[in-house]
Amino acid sequence: MRFASFVTPAGSAGFGIVEGDEVLDVSTARVLGGSACGLAGALRRVGDASALVGLARRGADVQRHALDRVRLLPPVTDAERILCIGLNFTDHAAEAKLSIPSQPAFFVRFGSSFAGHGEDIVAPSVSEEFDFEGEVALVVGRPGYRISAGQALGHVLGVTILADNSARDWQRHSRQVTAGKNFPRSGAIGPWCVTLDEGIDLRALQIATRLNGETVQQGSTADLIFDAEKAIAYASSFTPLSAGDIVALGTPAGVGMARDPPLWMKPGDLLEVEVPGIGTLANRVAAEAAAPGGTPARNAHARALHEGHPA
Amino acid sequence: MRFASFVTPAGSAGFGIVEGDEVLDVSTARVLGGSACGLAGALRRVGDASALVGLARRGADVQRHALDRVRLLPPVTDAERILCIGLNFTDHAAEAKLSIPSQPAFFVRFGSSFAGHGEDIVAPSVSEEFDFEGEVALVVGRPGYRISAGQALGHVLGVTILADNSARDWQRHSRQVTAGKNFPRSGAIGPWCVTLDEGIDLRALQIATRLNGETVQQGSTADLIFDAEKAIAYASSFTPLSAGDIVALGTPAGVGMARDPPLWMKPGDLLEVEVPGIGTLANRVAAEAAAPGGTPARNAHARALHEGHPA
Repeated sequence: MRFASFVTPAGSAGFGIVEGDEVLDVSTARVLGGSACGLAGALRRVGDASALVGLARRGADVQRHALDRVRLLPPVTDAERILCIGLNFTDHAAEAKLSIPSQPAFFVRFGSSFAGHGEDIVAPSVSEEFDFEGEVALVVGRPGYRISAGQALGHVLGVTILADNSARDWQRHSRQVTAGKNFPRSGAIGPWCVTLDEGIDLRALQIATRLNGETVQQGSTADLIFDAEKAIAYASSFTPLSAGDIVALGTPAGVGMARDPPLWMKPGDLLEVEVPGIGTLANRVAAEAAAPGGTPARNAHARALHEGHPA
Repeated sequence: MRFASFVTPAGSAGFGIVEGDEVLDVSTARVLGGSACGLAGALRRVGDASALVGLARRGADVQRHALDRVRLLPPVTDAERILCIGLNFTDHAAEAKLSIPSQPAFFVRFGSSFAGHGEDIVAPSVSEEFDFEGEVALVVGRPGYRISAGQALGHVLGVTILADNSARDWQRHSRQVTAGKNFPRSGAIGPWCVTLDEGIDLRALQIATRLNGETVQQGSTADLIFDAEKAIAYASSFTPLSAGDIVALGTPAGVGMARDPPLWMKPGDLLEVEVPGIGTLANRVAAEAAAPGGTPARNAHARALHEGHPA
């Protein structure tokens, strides 16, 4: 099962299930109360993902759209918490010249820092060091606090792909990396959340990051310092996880800042993060539009990157 | 003008304006569409705070409650971003043995990490080093991105008080302080947001933190390394600020970890943070209830701390 959020051909935001070359929009189902919530709000309201699948199966209130007619958004547009591990691959910690912490080094990204699959990501105009970071991320399906590692996967709805891109110069302003990680739509997430029951082995997911077609990062979740179970257990030991929360597992070696010379992203570049069994998250890099006092216009220069929807 | 959020005597969540010994609940106003939003959602919907004041003035759809009959919640229950500066007083940086960063070291707290005024704060059962941090925090009233320091105060609705309490042992698990700052209801915020037009001088706010009646921290916003204008300008340089967002300005010297012997909070303690002109945020410390798989019950051992509502 693949969950996605999207803008319908009529221009309204929806979310639901991807089936073949269609999306089933369950966001308008009466049981959701017509409230303008996203997938996280819907999960909280109906209890769990299977209830949303049931809605789709019954077909009442459900609209179907051709997948190539919708614009994909981040799979969860209303996540309460987006927690990302900073150093979770030994080879990346080594290239970053940082020691491995005793516990996952979680930082926070706001939802505003992400584009969806196929939308433009935005190179911050005030940064000279815009770097790529391909990652695997978990989507929480069932809330929990102090979840044991043994119980962790029972709280995970599925897996998505994350481009945890960073403004390295801003990340170094202090020990807290918040600033470098939160420029609007500097990162991306998607194309969808694939549920664990699709035969996903969280210990053997391959991550390949490509910049303009050239492979720049390769890694496997087999080499994570803190695996999915430990990440969920640790995160939920200090904050109650809610349905729709995102837990990103960190990036492998190969980032641009560790290269000689460094490799930074620039407008026009094509960034792809591929995780076989999940899909490919593809985004073009756009220059930041001058928008004094406002937010950069969403998807100002969107390009048709949806072809094929590799999964 | 004082904005507050609360639970009404009938048990429903509301928000509105504090006037004398009453609160005017504008959350049920028809113009807000009956949606279950909080103050931040209402500000986004109606545009600005003066429209909410107008609603209260006209009196339509507005319910009045005695202030001593409502239970106060965090002033904004649905903030999109809660950004806190880690080191913003020279004396606190010195006692923490950390150098002053070139820019504000922002970390993120989730809304779940805060109690309201008078509610119990919860000492994390898994921490041996639960520390107090009295602070002043700004509430954003008007959204903006790349706000200049000169324009910053035009985007600030008002000021509230924050107990940015920390589990020091967890804060040291990595360079990112996220874990130590996000235990559920380990901090507190309130009692309300006092608007800037109440004659507030953001350069001369006094902060006094008291533990069981003894003054443990004293500071003044006159001594901030990054003042309110710089904090708003820097935060909005990397993330678009939304109405209802919180920007906390950091704690002065005197925290428990810097004392010899260290001074940690324990169940039964009374923590008060007083900022003359704003009010006193008062919370009792409770032990964490055993709640496997769930969130600690809200206000499980609430005590009547509302008497007097010093302002």
